[in-house]
Amino acid sequence: MGRLLLSINAGSSSVKVTVFKGSPGDTEPSDLAVVQIAGLTAPPATLSYERGDVKIKNQEIEGVETQADAFKKILDHLIEDEGLGELKGKGDVEFACHRVVHGGDYDKQVRIDRDTYHHLEELSDLAPLHNAGALAIVKAVHDVLPSVTNIAFFDSTFHSTIPLATRTYMIDPDRATHNKLRKYGFHGLSYAYITRTISSYLSIPRDQTNIIALHLGSGASACCIKGGKSIDTTMGLTPLSGLPGATRSGDVDPSLIFHFTHDAGKPSRQSSKDLHITEAEQILNKESGWKAITGTTDFGKISQGWEDGEEKAKLAFEIFADRIVAYVGSYYVRLGGEVDALVFAGGIGEKGAVLRKYVVEKLYCLGFELDEGKNASPGKDRVVAIGKEGARHKVLVCQTDEQTEMARQCVQSAADFKDKA
Amino acid sequence: MGRLLLSINAGSSSVKVTVFKGSPGDTEPSDLAVVQIAGLTAPPATLSYERGDVKIKNQEIEGVETQADAFKKILDHLIEDEGLGELKGKGDVEFACHRVVHGGDYDKQVRIDRDTYHHLEELSDLAPLHNAGALAIVKAVHDVLPSVTNIAFFDSTFHSTIPLATRTYMIDPDRATHNKLRKYGFHGLSYAYITRTISSYLSIPRDQTNIIALHLGSGASACCIKGGKSIDTTMGLTPLSGLPGATRSGDVDPSLIFHFTHDAGKPSRQSSKDLHITEAEQILNKESGWKAITGTTDFGKISQGWEDGEEKAKLAFEIFADRIVAYVGSYYVRLGGEVDALVFAGGIGEKGAVLRKYVVEKLYCLGFELDEGKNASPGKDRVVAIGKEGARHKVLVCQTDEQTEMARQCVQSAADFKDKA
Repeated sequence: MGRLLLSINAGSSSVKVTVFKGSPGDTEPSDLAVVQIAGLTAPPATLSYERGDVKIKNQEIEGVETQADAFKKILDHLIEDEGLGELKGKGDVEFACHRVVHGGDYDKQVRIDRDTYHHLEELSDLAPLHNAGALAIVKAVHDVLPSVTNIAFFDSTFHSTIPLATRTYMIDPDRATHNKLRKYGFHGLSYAYITRTISSYLSIPRDQTNIIALHLGSGASACCIKGGKSIDTTMGLTPLSGLPGATRSGDVDPSLIFHFTHDAGKPSRQSSKDLHITEAEQILNKESGWKAITGTTDFGKISQGWEDGEEKAKLAFEIFADRIVAYVGSYYVRLGGEVDALVFAGGIGEKGAVLRKYVVEKLYCLGFELDEGKNASPGKDRVVAIGKEGARHKVLVCQTDEQTEMARQCVQSAADFKDKA
Repeated sequence: MGRLLLSINAGSSSVKVTVFKGSPGDTEPSDLAVVQIAGLTAPPATLSYERGDVKIKNQEIEGVETQADAFKKILDHLIEDEGLGELKGKGDVEFACHRVVHGGDYDKQVRIDRDTYHHLEELSDLAPLHNAGALAIVKAVHDVLPSVTNIAFFDSTFHSTIPLATRTYMIDPDRATHNKLRKYGFHGLSYAYITRTISSYLSIPRDQTNIIALHLGSGASACCIKGGKSIDTTMGLTPLSGLPGATRSGDVDPSLIFHFTHDAGKPSRQSSKDLHITEAEQILNKESGWKAITGTTDFGKISQGWEDGEEKAKLAFEIFADRIVAYVGSYYVRLGGEVDALVFAGGIGEKGAVLRKYVVEKLYCLGFELDEGKNASPGKDRVVAIGKEGARHKVLVCQTDEQTEMARQCVQSAADFKDKA
């Protein structure tokens, strides 16, 4: 290595690319710049950029409608930025790391070639709403940068250590095997980053680190980590189950959707020839969650509404917070009470002081207590302790970083990928 | 009162009737006899009977195919039994108490007249697999014993105290209200019995009794009881969600069924003009659970298999037991650690010493410990303490009794029902 790698995170409406420089064996590659194009599904698209002190925020751009357009625009922008001396042409990019939500039976990152690309397409059927964006970008990178090594990193990989009894649904086992129906879990790049970072912060060897980690954002999940490995998480076959999200119901009675609509099993309008999405999946993933109850996806507003005693905000806040508390209780038992820390991460976990206070107060009986001052203003450090001095268990906030995690894993395994190439 | 009441529990394949004698204001009516016809869907049907020392077990009977047939046969049998002097003719029966699984918006028992019967029929759409048997029996009783007062007791009633944020799904609230989509919870007659019985056993006023109750049978659920009232339970809109059962999946990713079959939303073969059951509901309620994994509905065999290290039994046992442990952990936090007792009930809860041991050992970090001798042979008392002397929290086994609970509630509210008649 020595040349650059791009960490790419593509959602349905946005593409984010972080440029890293790193050498094989680096524990932490250094990030040079980050550029994001958002609003693909709600034009005009906008570009944001950050390199050192150079900042562009939500600049409207034209002619960018697809993920492929967005990637080309991003690459041009990076090459044209004269301040980014390391990236002067396409040849300076060696690796493109793609965050792919659903990795199916892949238990680690994989170099993308014709075979693996085809396999990833098949996997999309398990998570059509989640994998499609990433696949579009892989294609775009291959077209624009044909000599780059593309690697897929999966949000499910970190959870490949979940034990059999935890990952198995109590359904017909033949069908389950044939259709690959089991708990996979997601947010794995974030949990890998959190685990690494917290074990280092606590100076505990990673294979002895027990944490309950909460990745709370517009998609939210919890993870029970024992000896540095995931032993349970709240998301399942797809990111739908477990905690609710901004537009996601989380767990509901599995028969609920058939009482919600008679069209549950029919293809939704979002379906296409290659993408099979039922009405049920559309409704429960995209038309539910706290937006359905309050009208906003912004959990900050909901927290404010909860403090102000607004009825709908109160309801949405408490549904979300109470379910988080319930999972922490169950994971606490799963770890036999040997918990090094409860860790809040993700946009809401990192910014949501009100939510953290509500959650931790409910966990008093397990030995979690807050330092209210630290909770209110945790600052910008990568890890901040917000627990009360002398409490039985620690409470931490961690600025998680999936882009860096991909880059880290990439430089550490770069030699393997080049050998195979 | 002074005449007899029948407690009737009708499943899809069986009808059980317990004859009680009681006077208004009795705290506990006395049971005189119990008769059950089973095997309606797997002929030949069989009759079992118990009155004092008189016992009949699984006597094959002919010409009994429907719930109505079964009820007539049961009534004839009771009248013809000369030893049952209290029931000499149809006129001796004053009340028929019907256990109905889904009570929808009813927050207490209701006398069944033309209007309420119609409303109950409508409710069946929410739980078609669960309410139909009871409605068939109500009709049969009305035909055979036209002067009897029929009262419906609901398994959901006890859970009407569950707070708003706990009973609300994060879905479109208008659709939720219109289609009555919320957590209801079931096994409520059992939990009412358990709460009453345990508060009396512990000599704690009922409104100060906090317990985590487990009703574990071929249908299984857990309930968090605070101040004598349900504040959460694992079943939801229907009995499908929460813990797995003999043929029930319990919670799965809400989108799983669409990856299991393309026919998820289509009517199942079990559907009829009046009964709408989707393929999904049929598969997840009737073709899943531990039978799907092991081939048997008998959890005793699965426990044995777990002890013997059989692979499939081990898997089914651990899925079930681990999920129980997880719910206890979350309910413990819900009660802020102020738990008067963890209570095992239902067929598996009462007989399953191996399961109880597995579960309670995992709860050691919360202060639950077993007395292994007492757990192995708890005896036949209505309540038995099986916890270790000196442990922080009590562990109890309770022989729950839904038939008696209906009778108890009936004699206590008998005056109300007669006034309205």
